Amino acid sequence: MTKRLTEDAHGVYIISATPFTDAGELDLSSADRLVDFYLEKGITGMTVLGMMGEAPKLAPDESVTFLKHMLKRVAGQIPVIVGVSSPGLDNMARLCRSSMEAGAAGVMIAPAAGLTTEDRLLTYFIQVFERLGPDIPVCYQDFPMTTGVHISAKLFNQMVRDFPQLVMLKHEDWPGLNKLTAVRNLESDTSTRRVSILTGNGGLFLPMELERGADGAMTGFAYPEMLIKVVELYRIGDRQAANDIFDAYLPLVRHEQQLGAGLAIRKEILRRRGVITSAATRAPGPKLSKADHDDISFLTSRLEKRLEEIGHGS
Amino acid sequence: MTKRLTEDAHGVYIISATPFTDAGELDLSSADRLVDFYLEKGITGMTVLGMMGEAPKLAPDESVTFLKHMLKRVAGQIPVIVGVSSPGLDNMARLCRSSMEAGAAGVMIAPAAGLTTEDRLLTYFIQVFERLGPDIPVCYQDFPMTTGVHISAKLFNQMVRDFPQLVMLKHEDWPGLNKLTAVRNLESDTSTRRVSILTGNGGLFLPMELERGADGAMTGFAYPEMLIKVVELYRIGDRQAANDIFDAYLPLVRHEQQLGAGLAIRKEILRRRGVITSAATRAPGPKLSKADHDDISFLTSRLEKRLEEIGHGS
Amino acid sequence: MTKRLTEDAHGVYIISATPFTDAGELDLSSADRLVDFYLEKGITGMTVLGMMGEAPKLAPDESVTFLKHMLKRVAGQIPVIVGVSSPGLDNMARLCRSSMEAGAAGVMIAPAAGLTTEDRLLTYFIQVFERLGPDIPVCYQDFPMTTGVHISAKLFNQMVRDFPQLVMLKHEDWPGLNKLTAVRNLESDTSTRRVSILTGNGGLFLPMELERGADGAMTGFAYPEMLIKVVELYRIGDRQAANDIFDAYLPLVRHEQQLGAGLAIRKEILRRRGVITSAATRAPGPKLSKADHDDISFLTSRLEKRLEEIGHGS
Amino acid sequence: MTKRLTEDAHGVYIISATPFTDAGELDLSSADRLVDFYLEKGITGMTVLGMMGEAPKLAPDESVTFLKHMLKRVAGQIPVIVGVSSPGLDNMARLCRSSMEAGAAGVMIAPAAGLTTEDRLLTYFIQVFERLGPDIPVCYQDFPMTTGVHISAKLFNQMVRDFPQLVMLKHEDWPGLNKLTAVRNLESDTSTRRVSILTGNGGLFLPMELERGADGAMTGFAYPEMLIKVVELYRIGDRQAANDIFDAYLPLVRHEQQLGAGLAIRKEILRRRGVITSAATRAPGPKLSKADHDDISFLTSRLEKRLEEIGHGS
Repeated sequence: MTKRLTEDAHGVYIISATPFTDAGELDLSSADRLVDFYLEKGITGMTVLGMMGEAPKLAPDESVTFLKHMLKRVAGQIPVIVGVSSPGLDNMARLCRSSMEAGAAGVMIAPAAGLTTEDRLLTYFIQVFERLGPDIPVCYQDFPMTTGVHISAKLFNQMVRDFPQLVMLKHEDWPGLNKLTAVRNLESDTSTRRVSILTGNGGLFLPMELERGADGAMTGFAYPEMLIKVVELYRIGDRQAANDIFDAYLPLVRHEQQLGAGLAIRKEILRRRGVITSAATRAPGPKLSKADHDDISFLTSRLEKRLEEIGHGS
Repeated sequence: MTKRLTEDAHGVYIISATPFTDAGELDLSSADRLVDFYLEKGITGMTVLGMMGEAPKLAPDESVTFLKHMLKRVAGQIPVIVGVSSPGLDNMARLCRSSMEAGAAGVMIAPAAGLTTEDRLLTYFIQVFERLGPDIPVCYQDFPMTTGVHISAKLFNQMVRDFPQLVMLKHEDWPGLNKLTAVRNLESDTSTRRVSILTGNGGLFLPMELERGADGAMTGFAYPEMLIKVVELYRIGDRQAANDIFDAYLPLVRHEQQLGAGLAIRKEILRRRGVITSAATRAPGPKLSKADHDDISFLTSRLEKRLEEIGHGS
Repeated sequence: MTKRLTEDAHGVYIISATPFTDAGELDLSSADRLVDFYLEKGITGMTVLGMMGEAPKLAPDESVTFLKHMLKRVAGQIPVIVGVSSPGLDNMARLCRSSMEAGAAGVMIAPAAGLTTEDRLLTYFIQVFERLGPDIPVCYQDFPMTTGVHISAKLFNQMVRDFPQLVMLKHEDWPGLNKLTAVRNLESDTSTRRVSILTGNGGLFLPMELERGADGAMTGFAYPEMLIKVVELYRIGDRQAANDIFDAYLPLVRHEQQLGAGLAIRKEILRRRGVITSAATRAPGPKLSKADHDDISFLTSRLEKRLEEIGHGS
Repeated sequence: MTKRLTEDAHGVYIISATPFTDAGELDLSSADRLVDFYLEKGITGMTVLGMMGEAPKLAPDESVTFLKHMLKRVAGQIPVIVGVSSPGLDNMARLCRSSMEAGAAGVMIAPAAGLTTEDRLLTYFIQVFERLGPDIPVCYQDFPMTTGVHISAKLFNQMVRDFPQLVMLKHEDWPGLNKLTAVRNLESDTSTRRVSILTGNGGLFLPMELERGADGAMTGFAYPEMLIKVVELYRIGDRQAANDIFDAYLPLVRHEQQLGAGLAIRKEILRRRGVITSAATRAPGPKLSKADHDDISFLTSRLEKRLEEIGHGS
């Protein structure tokens, strides 16, 4: 049986792409290769059906097919989180049940759009936690650039105290370094349970976030080996080495992090690395131009050269 | 066989509520009564699965169940439009097919969020029309307050010229009177096909919109008889009488038109009128407080009194 | 010496337009007539340099010229509030000083854009109150549709407890009835000082807001006599009579309340009533089309007829 | 006499900070040192009173004092652009006149908030260009993340054809690489005058933007020498060398580019480099925490080490 997600989660929870064929169908054999690739690189966990996983563009039966397929391939080797955000609680609860029955370790939830004040936001999560029950571990996805919903460190802290099943923060506010610090400080100041904090934003601020108290990354950068190495080196206290590796990849991290366009770039790199068969995204989605392809070629070839220089060449 | 939606559509296309039981399940017997109520009042058409129909909170199979049920009850007496907006074109196309197969007259589509420039918006609709094919009549839902996407009269005019299947504008920009005028003027100036324009915003500006060239209303006001009477009186040129009726209802129109909260008010009035069994909305949704109930009682009792005064009492 | 604004403020604080000549210059003789018109109708207070007063389009010296001129004409007969919102605290403090020196009763402040969480919002107002000092009475302008900043009843309540100089809420959230109720309930529940609540939104929900505990209106509707009468009738408990008057004006209230366009309509009506010489607004601002003028004529002539009917004709 | 801004502008137009004393007063002696520092590094041009220059927080007389002081110190050695964006055209025209009289080469204008459709945006700029007259060179600031206003390549192209005084695009859309390409392609396809394109976003995508047809940078990165070197190396075709330099600075570029917080970081680095006396920003503005200071120290010390490695140490 799969271990439930807990507050001590750390490392790299990769956000899995959802591979399609050129015709736009789910490509489950690419999905298998993707799982194998991620596991081989050494990820600690995985998140499926995130925003970057094109979840809102899947039919509901496709979502369930995909998550079951991924969970089966993972076969309990690592914990898997399923993104279940939805405009309605009924649909959320339904996907949540399917996920946990299929062996998920927990679910990730971003607040619905339009929760403009903190009391509305709290009321929403009271409803959510009531609906899902006390047994399902939850990761709060804090991604205001996309949801338009903002949470203060103070309110997050209160929710941690009120809901024991809230075990993780996916930190993706931007700029967000001082908020991360504020969350950690409030935990100390109020003797609140310390939750796991994994950070997103494509990894753009990963080393600084680890310095501020993050436990790892949850993002879909196409070179998970970098994320893993950086988190490991921070864990053993080798900050300079961690940043040396990080900086080598930074031009690509920065390039992939472009909101919207980044997903197509990420899939194309995974395709070039031989992991997935097609880089197709579902419409309406970003498409790569000739110039976009040239940018990727330029940046990946510079990456290889730089990795050689710092002794990390393949 | 159902008549397809065409440019000469006019009158009142009521936006149907989606009735639930107190437990939150689809209430199909209330749905039947709702259809009968709308037909008896004399609506010209109906729209199901609109934003006010809580469409994003239905499970996909519920959406199909509901639209089939409604279409069956309507039994071809009036044209029915189905709201098929979706973040992904695959899901949109799927719901579109189900709708047309079940006898819908056409579909209503609001642009996906994030279409920030007019070329992106046009590109999106090129993709949409390509996917749906030339045979499905489309109503463009222009509701920027909710979608965040704005269209100029000029671009709408261009789309009308480029896509023969675009036959209707649901006008719900706000303030929008001059845009409506601009759309009509551009049609003349460019000898473009005249499309049907039905207006939303809960009917708040209906008489002025009719004066500016709208062909009717598409909204879910709980007293469809008012919308119908106002549109009829404008059609025969009795502007003063139309406004007399409209003004009697205006306090309630204004009250129901509150974004978000309005849906709960609308369902509660339909419940009080004996049409649906429960006023329940799906979570997360607006709930009525004691004071909200009192407001409704006050306004509806004043409405009855006023209708007596102007000789429209029951 | 002018009385300072206090928590017991009530009645109608009219938001004054800023009259310009057709050439766009400040029109101080129209300003005089405007003051006289407002005073004659019986307003309780006045607000100048609000958003509807085109304050951001005045040069700073024009702002000071205008507010001094208005204060001089008012001559202490009623309290005057000055809108001093600004992106920077230095400019805010400067305008605040000029206002109080010229005899203002207090200032109105809307939060700066971008205050996305409640702790940021609170931090901002701590800075504001520190800068302005304890002696200047402040009205909090809660107008999220324009500022993008939302405040919960709970945070507002906390600010009332922390800052004795916060004496008034200009309530302009929308939909906002239940928030108004929540503010009043929290005052009771937490034994907090009861502040004055005046409501905006062009008066669209005025009777219901008075029922919920508002003390009056702060808006710029071109017929202040209606606002005054409605507030008075509510004060003496004649709810039906209040609503009879209100409903007669509602078609125009609804028309004037259109965000953006409403300002031009309001100025045009004031011009037609002989109060100001020109309806000009400063660029970029709304302009009235032929159809817009016809709408105004139609609605004002219906208003006159309706006022006759209910015995309030001139 | 100062040369007017023209379409062949290129290189680095640094966006100047506005230095304050710790007490928040304009610090004109720091301003002098800032000018000298920028000139010594070899900038091609300068922009004052940009958004990053805290322009909206200056009193109007401070704005004029500052721009005159800067122009005097620059003494015609390089062209200076003044940011004149304003909610009202009168204030914009006034600042514009002061700027040109004081010797500015041109002005930069971002569209006012709320221009939601392309016809409104075009109407706005028709008004702006009419007000400013044909003789003042204009740079269009395309910064939707802050203004909320989006322009398509097509509309920008049309404006270039309609308004000869529009000579520059400050490109700051994000993600924006394909838009930049689209602007250049449209120029060719429609035989339109080629305007200067300088890019912002703190330089985060500078090399790729130069590859796509940008002529240089307009941003305030605290190491202008990097921007200058990168643009020069691209100009002579040494793309790899350009990227080597750029990548060395990228960790800091990425850090400084954080919206809001970045301004405080930038000023602090300028202070540490001995250019300005105080890193103070005007309230409400970002403040640096202890952890923020540590981040800067860490990143600048790594930068120095890396510059040594690639032979660019001081």
